[in-house]
Amino acid sequence: MPCPFLTRLSTNYVRNYAPVLLKTYGSQCPVVSRSISSLQTPPIANVSTSTNANATEPSVQPTNLDSNDTKCPFLSSSSAANIVRNVTDSVEDIPTERTFAYENFFHEQIQRKKKDHSYRIFKKVNRLAGVGEFPKAFEYSWGEKPITVWCSNDYLGMSCHPEVKAAVKKALEENGAGAGGTRNISGNTLYHESLEKTLANLHQKEAALVFTSCYVANDTTLFTLAKQLPGCHIFSDAGNHASMIQGIRNSQAPKHIFRHNDPKHLDELLSKVDKSVPKIVAFETVHSMTGAVCPLEILCDIAHDHGALTFIDEVHAVGLYGEHGAGIGERDGQLHKMDIISGTLGKAFGNIGGYIASSSNLVDVIRSYGAGFIFTTSLPPTVLAGAQKAIEILASDEGRALRSKHQDNVRYLRTALKKEGFPVEHTPSHIIPIKLGDPLKCTQISDLMIQEHGHYVQAINYPTVARGQEKLRLAPTPYHTRPMMDILVADMKKVWKKLELPLEGSQCTEECAFCRKPILFEHFEERTRGCGIEINCAIPNCPQMVVAAN
Amino acid sequence: MPCPFLTRLSTNYVRNYAPVLLKTYGSQCPVVSRSISSLQTPPIANVSTSTNANATEPSVQPTNLDSNDTKCPFLSSSSAANIVRNVTDSVEDIPTERTFAYENFFHEQIQRKKKDHSYRIFKKVNRLAGVGEFPKAFEYSWGEKPITVWCSNDYLGMSCHPEVKAAVKKALEENGAGAGGTRNISGNTLYHESLEKTLANLHQKEAALVFTSCYVANDTTLFTLAKQLPGCHIFSDAGNHASMIQGIRNSQAPKHIFRHNDPKHLDELLSKVDKSVPKIVAFETVHSMTGAVCPLEILCDIAHDHGALTFIDEVHAVGLYGEHGAGIGERDGQLHKMDIISGTLGKAFGNIGGYIASSSNLVDVIRSYGAGFIFTTSLPPTVLAGAQKAIEILASDEGRALRSKHQDNVRYLRTALKKEGFPVEHTPSHIIPIKLGDPLKCTQISDLMIQEHGHYVQAINYPTVARGQEKLRLAPTPYHTRPMMDILVADMKKVWKKLELPLEGSQCTEECAFCRKPILFEHFEERTRGCGIEINCAIPNCPQMVVAAN
Repeated sequence: MPCPFLTRLSTNYVRNYAPVLLKTYGSQCPVVSRSISSLQTPPIANVSTSTNANATEPSVQPTNLDSNDTKCPFLSSSSAANIVRNVTDSVEDIPTERTFAYENFFHEQIQRKKKDHSYRIFKKVNRLAGVGEFPKAFEYSWGEKPITVWCSNDYLGMSCHPEVKAAVKKALEENGAGAGGTRNISGNTLYHESLEKTLANLHQKEAALVFTSCYVANDTTLFTLAKQLPGCHIFSDAGNHASMIQGIRNSQAPKHIFRHNDPKHLDELLSKVDKSVPKIVAFETVHSMTGAVCPLEILCDIAHDHGALTFIDEVHAVGLYGEHGAGIGERDGQLHKMDIISGTLGKAFGNIGGYIASSSNLVDVIRSYGAGFIFTTSLPPTVLAGAQKAIEILASDEGRALRSKHQDNVRYLRTALKKEGFPVEHTPSHIIPIKLGDPLKCTQISDLMIQEHGHYVQAINYPTVARGQEKLRLAPTPYHTRPMMDILVADMKKVWKKLELPLEGSQCTEECAFCRKPILFEHFEERTRGCGIEINCAIPNCPQMVVAAN
Repeated sequence: MPCPFLTRLSTNYVRNYAPVLLKTYGSQCPVVSRSISSLQTPPIANVSTSTNANATEPSVQPTNLDSNDTKCPFLSSSSAANIVRNVTDSVEDIPTERTFAYENFFHEQIQRKKKDHSYRIFKKVNRLAGVGEFPKAFEYSWGEKPITVWCSNDYLGMSCHPEVKAAVKKALEENGAGAGGTRNISGNTLYHESLEKTLANLHQKEAALVFTSCYVANDTTLFTLAKQLPGCHIFSDAGNHASMIQGIRNSQAPKHIFRHNDPKHLDELLSKVDKSVPKIVAFETVHSMTGAVCPLEILCDIAHDHGALTFIDEVHAVGLYGEHGAGIGERDGQLHKMDIISGTLGKAFGNIGGYIASSSNLVDVIRSYGAGFIFTTSLPPTVLAGAQKAIEILASDEGRALRSKHQDNVRYLRTALKKEGFPVEHTPSHIIPIKLGDPLKCTQISDLMIQEHGHYVQAINYPTVARGQEKLRLAPTPYHTRPMMDILVADMKKVWKKLELPLEGSQCTEECAFCRKPILFEHFEERTRGCGIEINCAIPNCPQMVVAAN
């Protein structure tokens, strides 16, 4: 349990508000409360009688408080007794009926972010959707500037595909801008019914359910299942997205975190819970920030061996992998082992919204019990019509051609970056992370790239990645040409030089730390090209699967 | 704490799975565990050794278990001992390595909903957005049928306003269907920046923040504030929307539920917590399902007297009240007392999405710390452009004319329904609830109204309202003509007659149960017309404010 004084609050804040904090919460602290109770004094006279039974205030100088049991574990250099002593010196000076200083507090919280360089100033990017304009945009942080976008999740340009735009326009003309209600109260259209059928078919499931976002889909589905299933245990990959973590945490179901993409660790944890207990194993196929691809089949098999349901997030894979764009599950022939698939309409499908696909009964339970599904205005016809069209395009030959070109471009850019010595992380997917491990440097590179060269590469800092994992994250599309990529690499070199950054190549090992097979990465790549080479490294935690940057 | 066996699970399910349930969870039940531990027996031999230290299984007939302390509080007719006894009779027969029967369980959960008539079959409604078509639609449950929609939250027809549609179309052409990323990663546009400025101005606040829905806005904001503010207490109106409840609950902050719109009760509860402790008082101005309007000023004053922040949901009021459509806060001149306002782009503004407006610091904290804001694809340019245009229209003379016409129509329809003896609930807002208190009857009326007369009036059943509060909920718009309303009332009479329902008028008292002032309701109405008559009933829990149907 983190100390409520020193973890959530800045040092300044604790210093300024220590008397109020001690007065209000001192008795709740396992360390400080002992100091307080040892004083055994009545509340000081000028404090109006409080109905809060926990509120006690020390009014005299504490004595004999430096014993070991008052040593606060959260303080390195001072004991709880010292704090109590300092605080009690001033406790009589504060107006006891003072209300909480909200604005000061919020200001402090923002200052903390600014100090550690995790404060975010959003770039202002109007992407252009006219014929032939993708992936161009205007950026407005330093006045209007034409740029090329290198970090959009509109991976295949579906947001401005002429047929998608035509479908959106038609729905707008015929059915208007908004749905006008929740799914239950006038907000369910034929667009919803049709899209859910399409999504179910795409993932070879009985049913699908659309949500306002995949954040809501993940949060609501995991929360609802964990609450509904009696005594459910959750097994969650350490790299899981915030939306899954939110749903799992809030369900308060017992949870077990297995190491990122580590089947052996999952097996160990599952073995500790009785087979008959309902369980959910939740993970992502393509990791959003490392680009790692999970060992899907083995994770599913282990989950099922222990009687667990598999909940698999394909958010960064739908539209991008598999014959019809159903994701890694389709590419690897594992759709039947994925009990619940979650996906998004907001990335490769070029719109907004999320969904799950699963059995009819399970989907009906989420539809009937999931608050995040029930109590919200449904997606507009325009969004649904656009998404439906994008899914259809990506399931067709056109989609297969786009995926092929996409993967070619990713390989080309990754190779070019590696060749120049940029710290590119190994990844078998379409995401190219360049690890900096420094939030300020990340932001400086990103800013210079826009200001001086018109390339938009977003700095990815905490909390999107863990501290120390700060990076740039590139996602070239089929519409970035080779000359564009060559210019990008050349311009990045200039920025690297200007900031005096090293070009020492990847910090990742070139071979598997376990099996010492340097070609594994290429095997993964081969698989994306459908050559069917078997992966023969089943060793857990392989760095080329995990792509944990170290 | 509800019993995990008998509240979450159907009786059938408990009967079928009792051995497994007891084996797995028996030791966690405060009642049953005593029965188990009194047996003091080792695990039965044919059960494989479990690593779960809590798993113990009784293997012999229990004795002396009928004492009072084994009486389960969740069972009316049998003691825990009887259950243990019954279960242990069969515990040796079950295969101990059986996995959980997920599909059976989900099926049972759905059957429960069907049995109590809270299972939902969505109507299939394609609303029409061509010139002059609003509020017409086609419904497809029983084949294509032209209908009039009476229950949309697109209260003022903004979803198909020609200027709104034009704005959406322009954004689509220029910037595409989707935003392509989170706000931080390529998904922040000038549309976002502009809309947030517009919303801040509308509510006379320093800043605003847009979310994918107001469900997410409420959930994320309350959760984040309650987690951030050290030791925060939440005071939540008993009638609050699911989105607020979700955020409050998940924050695990101490919470205090005050009676719906009851200032006196709020005052009592606030008095119990020290003034210096950070607190949030959360409520809605217009209740979504009863149409009650809160006593805004007095609730704010009480909150501030106790040093609390006010979080006020104006979801069913924005666009509909006040000179510029900023809601009840603007109408009542109380915007300055509303510390955080949440609103939606999905109802009167005719689109999708939600927002908060507040101080710059507070908004920046939610922007910087709120997971539900950070980790999700941002709203598409189309949505933002459409919402911006709708807000501008509703802030203009055109908006004022629409609001006036809207309120005229609401009065006309409510009066007509009351005159015919329909059980209309008293409400000073634009929502007209007709209370049935029976989910099956509600559904039957709704179905017959579509099938036989082409009117869509949705049945509002649990969980959108509490059980026993089932109702129809009408929301006429400025575009429903008087002849249309006359036909609706006549057709409803026919359906009432067919179903042999009584027409005995409102079950609500015609005068205030406390002050006996029958004209209070009209005073509320006057206020909406801006005549400035003072409300002189400050008595808490006034049924004409609360509109609790009883």
